[in-house]
Amino acid sequence: MAHFTHDTAPTRYAEAGGTRFAYRRFGIPGRPPLVSFQHFMGTLDDHDPALSDAFARDREVILFNNTGVASSSGTVPDTIEAMARDALTLFDALGLTTIDVVAHSMGGLIAQEVTLARPDLVRRLVLVGTGPRGGEGLGALPAWVAELFTRKYEQQEDMWLPILFAPTQTSQAAGRAYIDRILARPDRDTPVSDQSITAQRAALAAYGAVKDPSYAHLKGLRLPVLVVNGTEDIVIPTINSYVLQQFLPNAELILYPDANHGSHFQYPELFTRHTRIFLHG
Amino acid sequence: MAHFTHDTAPTRYAEAGGTRFAYRRFGIPGRPPLVSFQHFMGTLDDHDPALSDAFARDREVILFNNTGVASSSGTVPDTIEAMARDALTLFDALGLTTIDVVAHSMGGLIAQEVTLARPDLVRRLVLVGTGPRGGEGLGALPAWVAELFTRKYEQQEDMWLPILFAPTQTSQAAGRAYIDRILARPDRDTPVSDQSITAQRAALAAYGAVKDPSYAHLKGLRLPVLVVNGTEDIVIPTINSYVLQQFLPNAELILYPDANHGSHFQYPELFTRHTRIFLHG
Repeated sequence: MAHFTHDTAPTRYAEAGGTRFAYRRFGIPGRPPLVSFQHFMGTLDDHDPALSDAFARDREVILFNNTGVASSSGTVPDTIEAMARDALTLFDALGLTTIDVVAHSMGGLIAQEVTLARPDLVRRLVLVGTGPRGGEGLGALPAWVAELFTRKYEQQEDMWLPILFAPTQTSQAAGRAYIDRILARPDRDTPVSDQSITAQRAALAAYGAVKDPSYAHLKGLRLPVLVVNGTEDIVIPTINSYVLQQFLPNAELILYPDANHGSHFQYPELFTRHTRIFLHG
Repeated sequence: MAHFTHDTAPTRYAEAGGTRFAYRRFGIPGRPPLVSFQHFMGTLDDHDPALSDAFARDREVILFNNTGVASSSGTVPDTIEAMARDALTLFDALGLTTIDVVAHSMGGLIAQEVTLARPDLVRRLVLVGTGPRGGEGLGALPAWVAELFTRKYEQQEDMWLPILFAPTQTSQAAGRAYIDRILARPDRDTPVSDQSITAQRAALAAYGAVKDPSYAHLKGLRLPVLVVNGTEDIVIPTINSYVLQQFLPNAELILYPDANHGSHFQYPELFTRHTRIFLHG
């Protein structure tokens, strides 16, 4: 039997809770599936094939658009908690009972709320370029960073180069390779709507505004967590990754040099090696 | 040809600069040797056989007592910089021209100064449970931690249990396994002298007192560095590991959960896997 890859897996749809969810599922069944949670403004096409295909060697990988995002129907809600409920609606529809999660940026916030709501569902959690509820500078971008998300490019995917990668030659070259990888798939996902961008931005701001210097809610995340980031994350400052490690009951932290918000895309081989050690022991 | 292990390698001696240095060297020649730098009050016997033997599978490992420490002759100097010069005297006597380094605690401070003094000598540097010159709380132990270093035990090696491991059942059990490992070798190193303890303590205090919030000197450490620590290091606070990663030009950080100052002894298998990825790619 031929197995699908990141680039060949068909987009499939699941109807649940009034939403028609778009998702892709591929890889070798056996272990619990690895579900990947996408970042602000991201679609199915912004996941990195280098990561998906490395993980899919010995497990299933599931990529999905949450309610209202790109090719999924519906309206994006304006809280992270509601996004978590939407994601659970899909996971229940797919009959998932145990999953591992790799979640990036806003996806990391949603994944934390999914895990808090349903601790039995999530076995292990990998949080990349993200932070805790109420994290430092979370959802409150400096003007120069906010502006990066509004720029128009001849090839619009190039917007991610200054957002996800460091302003060094090495990091930008790795960024270019990432952009090439995400452009390889011929049939493209639907672009995100203005409604979804506005609602996601509001959700991020609200989630960042709930301050609790003791981060008491993180004690509810008792599963093993791997926190990953680059040296200088300009979107969700790197100190939030340190805070996650310090306040979570059972978390490992890995910070990569010369990297920004998309460190896992910059070091796909190293990240998948580290993550596979964390997930599989 | 039979190869020596951590427990069977004979203690050898090298005369240089007026000191008779005690060291052990074992493993498979080929790659640059891995030199291990010891912590405050540590002797040849406090290195972990689980780490040494894992690294010695495909390279030589060198353990050494610096000038004045345990079975090495001479007087321990009262600055980290002078300890670095002493270590270089030994390395030159051994004809070492390229080394990798794993350095713990005070050993991490010495290794940083060795590398600053001789950047061509050190290829890659692993810093465990340590911090930068002028680091936060470095050499200024809280009274309750300082007291741990003065306690007397029926089996004196047990002093390391509260110093190197977290006060949890899991960490203390890992600590007990470490103590058993370091006690396995029959012929024991000489205990450290009061002079060496006093001088090392003075050197730590002086090194911690040189404050520079910009940590400008760290820019001189241009080699790849792996920084490792436990969640809550009570000897050299964990924030110093984060600071090292943030201010070094090319550093990766790994923090382990449920761990204290001796996280590499707590997770010997995970630490050697991570470190071998870092050292060998």
